[in-house]
Amino acid sequence: MIRRPSQPRERGIPEATVARLPLYLRALNGMAERGLATVSSEDLAAAAGVNSAKLRKDLSHLGSYGTRGVGYDVEYLIYQISRELGLTQDWAVAIVGVGNLGRALANYGGFVSRGFRVAALLDADPEVVGDHIAGLNVEHIDELETVIRLRGVSIVVLATPAAAAQQVADRVVAAGVTSILNFAPVVLSVPEGVDIRKVDLSIELQILAFHEQRKMDRMTGGPAMADEWPEAVDL
Amino acid sequence: MIRRPSQPRERGIPEATVARLPLYLRALNGMAERGLATVSSEDLAAAAGVNSAKLRKDLSHLGSYGTRGVGYDVEYLIYQISRELGLTQDWAVAIVGVGNLGRALANYGGFVSRGFRVAALLDADPEVVGDHIAGLNVEHIDELETVIRLRGVSIVVLATPAAAAQQVADRVVAAGVTSILNFAPVVLSVPEGVDIRKVDLSIELQILAFHEQRKMDRMTGGPAMADEWPEAVDL
Repeated sequence: MIRRPSQPRERGIPEATVARLPLYLRALNGMAERGLATVSSEDLAAAAGVNSAKLRKDLSHLGSYGTRGVGYDVEYLIYQISRELGLTQDWAVAIVGVGNLGRALANYGGFVSRGFRVAALLDADPEVVGDHIAGLNVEHIDELETVIRLRGVSIVVLATPAAAAQQVADRVVAAGVTSILNFAPVVLSVPEGVDIRKVDLSIELQILAFHEQRKMDRMTGGPAMADEWPEAVDL
Repeated sequence: MIRRPSQPRERGIPEATVARLPLYLRALNGMAERGLATVSSEDLAAAAGVNSAKLRKDLSHLGSYGTRGVGYDVEYLIYQISRELGLTQDWAVAIVGVGNLGRALANYGGFVSRGFRVAALLDADPEVVGDHIAGLNVEHIDELETVIRLRGVSIVVLATPAAAAQQVADRVVAAGVTSILNFAPVVLSVPEGVDIRKVDLSIELQILAFHEQRKMDRMTGGPAMADEWPEAVDL
């Protein structure tokens, strides 16, 4: 297999647009659940937290322009974005690390409904290997390379402790996988051409904190924050 | 307490900027971990997946302009963003639903390091109540209102099954909490003035799938996707 990671993308969708497509998809799925058939660019933009001009520009990259006075067809736009993101394919995913987070991810309904099929669960702990979770038996990490090859795993989810993550990532990459989703609280180094994304479960909590702070400011009559730069900030 | 949820914000930071601040913070924390002292707007923008003009505009809302030829001081920018997001305060968080996901969240180091202190774990299952997790005893959901009041809980994380989430959300709101982070796979309705954010753990996986699809296209010589709109899309 010849990899040409530096080759420009065939279709020029900006990276920032790619990052927003899942947000539109999440908003659209919520609308579909509530039975909405069409949505205006203003309403969809508001639900996704962007301005409507940007939304229209993003969707124009998909060849989706909506209908004047009607807006976008919710189901069709879900299909277009899903296709663009590759979610109409079936992606075999392996989850490495079957602690609480790995188990939660294995049982997470939102993966299957987006085209992600959990094809393997792997762990190094003999106490955990053999456990039956979400229809799968947990396999030993020694089987990693075999499992990746035989089941066509194209994305690996790392839910190991921080100390084990880099070693597993190295093996995953050596086995030919070029997409890693990292839940372990550590920055991993991978060769060029490997896409790695780090999940920070506190991101949404941070946005809530911003609004909560503003609500408290309003109740107390103004910000109660120090303006000085403290000697040490523990982050 | 008088709540004025419709009052305009004292400082006019656009909502879209607020949503990007945690992304900058995540990128900056990664840089700080790697020992970087300063960062250019171009590098920070690339790490956060936005364009650098937007980054500079976002940061200008915080009064942060960097230094020509040097860039931004990483630690100071972490402090400024953290302060703006309210992360230099201590937020008491209650996690409702102590299954695998609730346990994983209770043990998640990324909360504490961002100013979120898990002050309570609650569950309805008598088998789970009394379990000792991350330094806390799981309490019965009947204690929800008491716990919120006595421990000053300002943000509730819902990690219950979908069927229980709305009922818990109603009680949380009645107890005066106006910030809810929802991991349950269901759309909740809450009164105006309550901020609710839904976490979709598959968002980052979707971005990976997009790139994986592109890599496969390059190897096979072009997109293998159907252009037709199929009869049924199961999302």
